[in-house]
Amino acid sequence: MPALAATLEAAARFGGGEDGGVTRFAWSPQLFEVYDWLAGELSALGLEVDRDAAGNLLARWEAGSGSPVMVGSHLDTVPSGGHYDGALGVLGGFHAIRLLKEWGVQPARPVWLCSFMDEEGARFGTALFGSRAFVGEDLTELADRKDREGVSVPEAMSAAGFDFGKLSEARRVDELGAYLEMHIEQGPVLEQEEIELGIVTGIVGVRGYRARLTGEANHAGTTPMRMRRDALAGAARVVLALREAALERNDMTTNVGIISVEPGGFNVVPGACEFTIDTRSATDEGFAGLEPLVRQTLERVASEEGLDLEFTEIFRLDPLPLAEELIEALERAADEEGATHRRLPSGAGHDAMVVGRRVPAGMLFVPSRRGISHSPEEFTPPEQCELGARVLARALQSLVEER
Amino acid sequence: MPALAATLEAAARFGGGEDGGVTRFAWSPQLFEVYDWLAGELSALGLEVDRDAAGNLLARWEAGSGSPVMVGSHLDTVPSGGHYDGALGVLGGFHAIRLLKEWGVQPARPVWLCSFMDEEGARFGTALFGSRAFVGEDLTELADRKDREGVSVPEAMSAAGFDFGKLSEARRVDELGAYLEMHIEQGPVLEQEEIELGIVTGIVGVRGYRARLTGEANHAGTTPMRMRRDALAGAARVVLALREAALERNDMTTNVGIISVEPGGFNVVPGACEFTIDTRSATDEGFAGLEPLVRQTLERVASEEGLDLEFTEIFRLDPLPLAEELIEALERAADEEGATHRRLPSGAGHDAMVVGRRVPAGMLFVPSRRGISHSPEEFTPPEQCELGARVLARALQSLVEER
Repeated sequence: MPALAATLEAAARFGGGEDGGVTRFAWSPQLFEVYDWLAGELSALGLEVDRDAAGNLLARWEAGSGSPVMVGSHLDTVPSGGHYDGALGVLGGFHAIRLLKEWGVQPARPVWLCSFMDEEGARFGTALFGSRAFVGEDLTELADRKDREGVSVPEAMSAAGFDFGKLSEARRVDELGAYLEMHIEQGPVLEQEEIELGIVTGIVGVRGYRARLTGEANHAGTTPMRMRRDALAGAARVVLALREAALERNDMTTNVGIISVEPGGFNVVPGACEFTIDTRSATDEGFAGLEPLVRQTLERVASEEGLDLEFTEIFRLDPLPLAEELIEALERAADEEGATHRRLPSGAGHDAMVVGRRVPAGMLFVPSRRGISHSPEEFTPPEQCELGARVLARALQSLVEER
Repeated sequence: MPALAATLEAAARFGGGEDGGVTRFAWSPQLFEVYDWLAGELSALGLEVDRDAAGNLLARWEAGSGSPVMVGSHLDTVPSGGHYDGALGVLGGFHAIRLLKEWGVQPARPVWLCSFMDEEGARFGTALFGSRAFVGEDLTELADRKDREGVSVPEAMSAAGFDFGKLSEARRVDELGAYLEMHIEQGPVLEQEEIELGIVTGIVGVRGYRARLTGEANHAGTTPMRMRRDALAGAARVVLALREAALERNDMTTNVGIISVEPGGFNVVPGACEFTIDTRSATDEGFAGLEPLVRQTLERVASEEGLDLEFTEIFRLDPLPLAEELIEALERAADEEGATHRRLPSGAGHDAMVVGRRVPAGMLFVPSRRGISHSPEEFTPPEQCELGARVLARALQSLVEER
């Protein structure tokens, strides 16, 4: 049996670029080429392989009775993406099924493998398209989305032999019993702590804000310090207060990633400062505290600095706790394989976030070198990928074997 | 005798725009038109009026013997500037001379009035052009400066009948005994403290810096707070630490007026942050402390935050203490006129900063409504302008009358 690393490299040829990156957009020939190659491999393993109405590649090892346990992730990428984001979950799932076959496992319930269409949303801004269709979400509102060439989602689907009007046929979540997804961490924790596997406790909820503090633009030479209403000084206090709170609370993150000042002159006290706040928590309790923290911090600083405040929420996604029984199943599987592991939240979204709102879902992280993702430099050592797939196989085995 | 306010309004017609602002660039017809009008008024008062080789308008009341005492400022403006910045000093000086005549003062030494060319530098970036020529600075390096239409300084001078090659002929500082300049405060201190006049103790020195803090751009969802090297958080600490130091020390100001982050994504921890630092002090001791304060603050924060630091000085101008005997003469004059007054530094540069490096110079501030300057909204009440001119006249009288 080939090593998982070899399978990952084989897949990276499809859409591979000169910089070592991989580009496979939703509904693109490159994506369907890797589908075709993988479908051949899965068929050879004895699985039934189909594309569903949403362009998900679905392979089924129909066995036993009861609700299927599905593994999966996605094969679409960002422009010049890495070899691991998404692909590791699909191909690691394929590798895990190969292992089950090799180990002679007789499943008491079906084992499915899914490569979801367009998790990244890089082409149309329609992230998690395939998993949303799989759980039966109404995607009608996405019909108007166009790519850079002006091609709409229905047009791209039609060109690939799909029908936007039949998306609802992709809904199969109701048959499912459980979902497992392996993924690279896309963060530095496992690598820095030298831990082989992360067992994901939940996927963070996100609340995003845009804030504007308005003071008064003044000449920086002639306006005494005590008479200023410096909007940037206010923003600086917000940046640091939110960071301090996040460091103290330990169940949330916060980030100010975009900031601008007006009028933006060397010798002009900033009269206005606009900035974004990205704040996340994986727990319901932590998530509930985000809005009050942000609001109170902004209001307190604005009041103390004599600034006017405008403040709007621009993004909200609730956190998703993953299923405790699957967390424990993955931990036992890691123990069986002798892998070091720790629980941690996922700071980024994944297909498991969509599927997991409907059926029990579990996620397994392998380390990301330097936390780098969405780049040709994305890397996880072959032995760590292999270990992840073996633990995924053990967990799968524990879920599908009769007890 | 017309009130000073009427004279200011008469002058504001030259270059006046629909928004109420005034635009009189260096070497422009609008500037020479106001020169011609004022020259007529000054001649009628019995003064000898000339334009010197640098385009300064110089009026001389030749009387007595000894070195002249000069009053002045400038009549050029920023685009759509106010009616007071510069004009108040020239026309207030004219008004003060009218008062001396009215009072029957017999000067024991000459009284000069100067409107310096191009104090603002709005057209060519050649601020303080006329006063620099008057003190004999070599301006050869400005020959290449061009305005937006591509016209060079020598070309603009030539079109107005001047010769760039003869600039050195404008040097007359050696004849001068003292210089007095009245100006709007361009800051909020006098208005807020309800004080009628400011006696300027010195003109601030400026040190300007550009700083770049470099950390690591990371995904804001997947990178734990403790593993970040957030360049904006570092910059925020610098902004607040410098402000804190300036508030404590009370003899300096600091401003971060321009800031940008990279890569500038909502969910990306800022990997780099670039910002400017404008820091000023009017005293030699305060000025000497600016560079160590900025450097040590940046280095401490960079070190504590694990950031790389680049740091360059982009501007330096030494402070100029004004002449104590002229400060006291202005204070006595204010007392004679029953005006409330206080000492304060000038946070902005003025022609007095150039002339005052060669001869004793004094400056008088009148209040600026809301500290606004370089705008059509610039305003000082007529009675405050008038009071300023009377105090200027009294100070002038004390300097030129035989004792």
